[in-house]
Amino acid sequence: MDLDLQKYSVRTDLAVESRELAGGTGSAPIPGVMEDVVQEDGIKITRLDVENDAASQQIGRVKGHYVTLEVPDLRKGDTGLQDQVSVVFAREFEAFMSRIGIGPKASVLIVGLGNWNVTPDSLGPLVVENVMVTRQYFELMPDRVAPGYRQVSAVAPGVLGLTGIESSETVQGIVEQIRPDLIIAIDALASRSLERVNTTIQIADIGIHPGSGVGNKRKGLTQEILGVPCIAIGVPTVCYASTIVNNAIELMKSHFGEGAPETGKIMGMLHDIPEGERLALVKEVLEPLGHDLIVTPKEIDEFIEDIANIVASGLNAALHEAVDPGNVGAYTH
Amino acid sequence: MDLDLQKYSVRTDLAVESRELAGGTGSAPIPGVMEDVVQEDGIKITRLDVENDAASQQIGRVKGHYVTLEVPDLRKGDTGLQDQVSVVFAREFEAFMSRIGIGPKASVLIVGLGNWNVTPDSLGPLVVENVMVTRQYFELMPDRVAPGYRQVSAVAPGVLGLTGIESSETVQGIVEQIRPDLIIAIDALASRSLERVNTTIQIADIGIHPGSGVGNKRKGLTQEILGVPCIAIGVPTVCYASTIVNNAIELMKSHFGEGAPETGKIMGMLHDIPEGERLALVKEVLEPLGHDLIVTPKEIDEFIEDIANIVASGLNAALHEAVDPGNVGAYTH
Amino acid sequence: MDLDLQKYSVRTDLAVESRELAGGTGSAPIPGVMEDVVQEDGIKITRLDVENDAASQQIGRVKGHYVTLEVPDLRKGDTGLQDQVSVVFAREFEAFMSRIGIGPKASVLIVGLGNWNVTPDSLGPLVVENVMVTRQYFELMPDRVAPGYRQVSAVAPGVLGLTGIESSETVQGIVEQIRPDLIIAIDALASRSLERVNTTIQIADIGIHPGSGVGNKRKGLTQEILGVPCIAIGVPTVCYASTIVNNAIELMKSHFGEGAPETGKIMGMLHDIPEGERLALVKEVLEPLGHDLIVTPKEIDEFIEDIANIVASGLNAALHEAVDPGNVGAYTH
Amino acid sequence: MDLDLQKYSVRTDLAVESRELAGGTGSAPIPGVMEDVVQEDGIKITRLDVENDAASQQIGRVKGHYVTLEVPDLRKGDTGLQDQVSVVFAREFEAFMSRIGIGPKASVLIVGLGNWNVTPDSLGPLVVENVMVTRQYFELMPDRVAPGYRQVSAVAPGVLGLTGIESSETVQGIVEQIRPDLIIAIDALASRSLERVNTTIQIADIGIHPGSGVGNKRKGLTQEILGVPCIAIGVPTVCYASTIVNNAIELMKSHFGEGAPETGKIMGMLHDIPEGERLALVKEVLEPLGHDLIVTPKEIDEFIEDIANIVASGLNAALHEAVDPGNVGAYTH
Repeated sequence: MDLDLQKYSVRTDLAVESRELAGGTGSAPIPGVMEDVVQEDGIKITRLDVENDAASQQIGRVKGHYVTLEVPDLRKGDTGLQDQVSVVFAREFEAFMSRIGIGPKASVLIVGLGNWNVTPDSLGPLVVENVMVTRQYFELMPDRVAPGYRQVSAVAPGVLGLTGIESSETVQGIVEQIRPDLIIAIDALASRSLERVNTTIQIADIGIHPGSGVGNKRKGLTQEILGVPCIAIGVPTVCYASTIVNNAIELMKSHFGEGAPETGKIMGMLHDIPEGERLALVKEVLEPLGHDLIVTPKEIDEFIEDIANIVASGLNAALHEAVDPGNVGAYTH
Repeated sequence: MDLDLQKYSVRTDLAVESRELAGGTGSAPIPGVMEDVVQEDGIKITRLDVENDAASQQIGRVKGHYVTLEVPDLRKGDTGLQDQVSVVFAREFEAFMSRIGIGPKASVLIVGLGNWNVTPDSLGPLVVENVMVTRQYFELMPDRVAPGYRQVSAVAPGVLGLTGIESSETVQGIVEQIRPDLIIAIDALASRSLERVNTTIQIADIGIHPGSGVGNKRKGLTQEILGVPCIAIGVPTVCYASTIVNNAIELMKSHFGEGAPETGKIMGMLHDIPEGERLALVKEVLEPLGHDLIVTPKEIDEFIEDIANIVASGLNAALHEAVDPGNVGAYTH
Repeated sequence: MDLDLQKYSVRTDLAVESRELAGGTGSAPIPGVMEDVVQEDGIKITRLDVENDAASQQIGRVKGHYVTLEVPDLRKGDTGLQDQVSVVFAREFEAFMSRIGIGPKASVLIVGLGNWNVTPDSLGPLVVENVMVTRQYFELMPDRVAPGYRQVSAVAPGVLGLTGIESSETVQGIVEQIRPDLIIAIDALASRSLERVNTTIQIADIGIHPGSGVGNKRKGLTQEILGVPCIAIGVPTVCYASTIVNNAIELMKSHFGEGAPETGKIMGMLHDIPEGERLALVKEVLEPLGHDLIVTPKEIDEFIEDIANIVASGLNAALHEAVDPGNVGAYTH
Repeated sequence: MDLDLQKYSVRTDLAVESRELAGGTGSAPIPGVMEDVVQEDGIKITRLDVENDAASQQIGRVKGHYVTLEVPDLRKGDTGLQDQVSVVFAREFEAFMSRIGIGPKASVLIVGLGNWNVTPDSLGPLVVENVMVTRQYFELMPDRVAPGYRQVSAVAPGVLGLTGIESSETVQGIVEQIRPDLIIAIDALASRSLERVNTTIQIADIGIHPGSGVGNKRKGLTQEILGVPCIAIGVPTVCYASTIVNNAIELMKSHFGEGAPETGKIMGMLHDIPEGERLALVKEVLEPLGHDLIVTPKEIDEFIEDIANIVASGLNAALHEAVDPGNVGAYTH
């Protein structure tokens, strides 16, 4: 088994998954990685800071702040839980903004990345459809805007195959025209575990990097490129068939008892080799046969709509002081 | 009857209608307005040039070239006729481009104006969905693009109420990023006559002016603003209730015999006063009651889709030499 | 002027319009027509009973009970008013059901008539999409259904051109399978006045008759055919161009002063002839030219969605005791 | 390992997969199972007859005729191949009909099963949207129907959760009203292998059985129930995560060399136990953790639309002699 591990690297867009791969929460702390995990009412909140280049290299993540909400029950379609996640998301997002120095008057451009014709990639455009847009009032009748609102504009730039234009080009062009103080980019992500799909929301101040997301951007949306801070909101909506297989083998290990001689008998070397190597092995088998498809749960239409509503409601409450967090649902439809 | 004719000016976005109001085809020629009308197979083609400021003032149209296709039977849903209109449109559009000096290699940005949530205003976005987009191939693998294609990109910028951004701002931003040689802007228009709705296509090299179209742009898309020539393609999809009434009174005049004493008896002063004044009268009655609604035919969903396909197929054939005009339908779905 | 008034009869599906044509509210009472009009908060409620054949003939309406809500401001998009109309509709609908003897346990089949591909004809299917459907719980787990709910099923049968099957055939087939106690049929209607379009809701216990509605049914949905009582809910969403013209002439009459000599001078005989005859005249002029199109307001997409939500929320509250009228919006999205 | 194999039985709706599980093509013939496999231009056609009860029991399939088209490259989006599959499907379907005694004049009701709101379950409704419907012409103007057409009607009954009515109840009701000679039911299926998803079409004269398909029908559509023959067309659009894992393990076996001692070392008992038992094992591990999700490829929107067009075009050509198989695309959009 001579595997090109580089080639078959574990594809994840989530910091919590990178952390797991680098040893897992609860394992020895990584220098330069600050971590804070709280549980509240079925929502696991992980605040993770990658503070220096060494930490960045070790964990395989860009330097920056990451907040992740994991809500395993989100797929159950419980509207009460959805409202609650929306409230928690609003609170975390508001805290995130003030932590990185974004004030209550800062104007915001919301960018919904992804392809609206591909359901699991349509999260960004759906959020854009559901957020409150207010910039036109500030432009047309600035004296009559009620207090407690800020300037928000929103755009879904589409994808290269639909427009012939990189989404980053469109966004950069708009940014130069309207000069917002902050960009919030929403994107569908790939996860390395099927159970995180549609149950996890990540907030990060690192912008969007090339190759991330479902639709493989070729150019990024970062403060370096745009001259404006960019907070990325990501939700995993797909995963590779190979990661499903790899996860299942991992679960079988625990099921039969990790390290038990019995388990070794059942699973052979699959039990012994490190996870990264095993995934590479699985990919090596599936990929040439065209079996390493990217998949999404059957109920993706409903999941995407539910999460888009959660994020849009949460953003409305976080961005406008006048929007009551208890009433976050009222501004979307 | 003391009417503010300015206020109640006849709303039309069509040059052929302005021409009619200024005297009608067949009436005395207007100095500085060149006009050429041909009929072929149920398609009336009017080529109209407004050559100087005097003419512009008299006819109430910006200086420039206007080509109009009128196809009264287009609402009958005959796919054979639709294909034929698409071919004629492609031919006229190609001629129009070379006349204003756009070469076969010029790169093009197609802009679909309008609100995709408002069916009669969704023509532009629908055309954008159906045109061939090729710029990405020129960017990613320039050596492998087959001959006979040019660089085309396409975007639907949305409307102010949805994005908080003027569509002209979005377009200007994109233009500065990708620097196309030509912009083609597609927009749904208002007509002053119900029978032109969804049966007429206008090509003009004047760009888009504030206040035109169904959705009332506040800023234009013109060569002055964008630094790039802008051809506007417009299709009337709505008209005012008042113009329906006014048209009907006109039709009644001809029906009973224009100028006949009998007609005067039936219609009173409605027969005698000039058309513009009569429309003002109708508006004066309807508007304060909120009855001067903008309306569209019941079958608008199908009409819009049919015309969007005609325009998209025609553009594909006109823009790419490799696309066979006899086969224009193949690149859209 | 020798007009076939039969042929050009005034097309309306609304009892209040028939009443107007037969003399207008406030004019002398018609024997056998009971009428009760109340105004509350911008909602005009007309309860009209056609009690015998003579009255039916005179007013041109089938014998039965009619309740009409007219809300001129409904087109303004005010969500507060929409909620209020929904509550009033629920109350009126509940009263209507008990008046015709439908008890709180009666099972209901909701039928959404019309063509989902034609926006102004899609009201019925949209309501079906938004009502609470409960019959499956009564079938699958009758012991676990909470009190305060009744059996409701809902179907949109489509139109003849889409399915090859008359909607009445589909409904009859389903009725024979599931034997509901009541059918509620929702249909988009034609109005004779543009201002009633999308501002009026009619409830009637007469079922659906051939030729009514936007899509011209050839067979009806009536108690005679189905063996089950059928309440029709109708909302006008279109009108003829000719009725717009006719209405405008009527409005001009009042504007200039009905009966004043001045008005006669302005409008000639158009002032003097009876309304029905004048409409026939207008139709005679417009129809042969193909100008008597059926039209709908430009904003039809939004109007249809708003009214579908009002009707669906209202039905949910009226049909299920457990659904709180103050909370009617919660069960639709 | 004490597994309830019954409970974890291999879920498949495809006869070719049942055949594989019972030994695989190329293995010893099963008495009472007739089998014929041809390859043409990338399309593998398997005609499989289950002729008696013993064969039915052994193979785990209802007695009947099964034709399966497998086209691995169908996911590549090649429109040429799609057209070709459509032509082959039409030919096979026509042969299938005459083999079971359906003549060229037999009237047909096409039933599109599934939930239009769930993309991987929306195949049936999409096909219904795209087939030619002709019954209305036979009803309204029988003398004017051109030769070479038969009576076709089409309906998408929806699912229990949307309507409160079993789709079989709706279909039965319609059948009793319009009495077709044949029912063709289209349904999305579950496969036990990710690579068959969206690449396989099955035709069978066994109707639809409870529990089959993506949406778990509780009642069937069979000749016994409906009194009319029912041909089922099925396309797998989803599979279980557990079957992906199981397949991958199978592929690893072949990759390392089935039966080689090396492979046993790598894979332990996973190499040795029979496939059915291994799948049960995987399910035993994944299910309790909620990890045995049903998944679909990320590109499901496009796949579903492509296959719906293939099936609709194929049906149009197979059902109407006047529709040219070389021109099958023309009647859908």
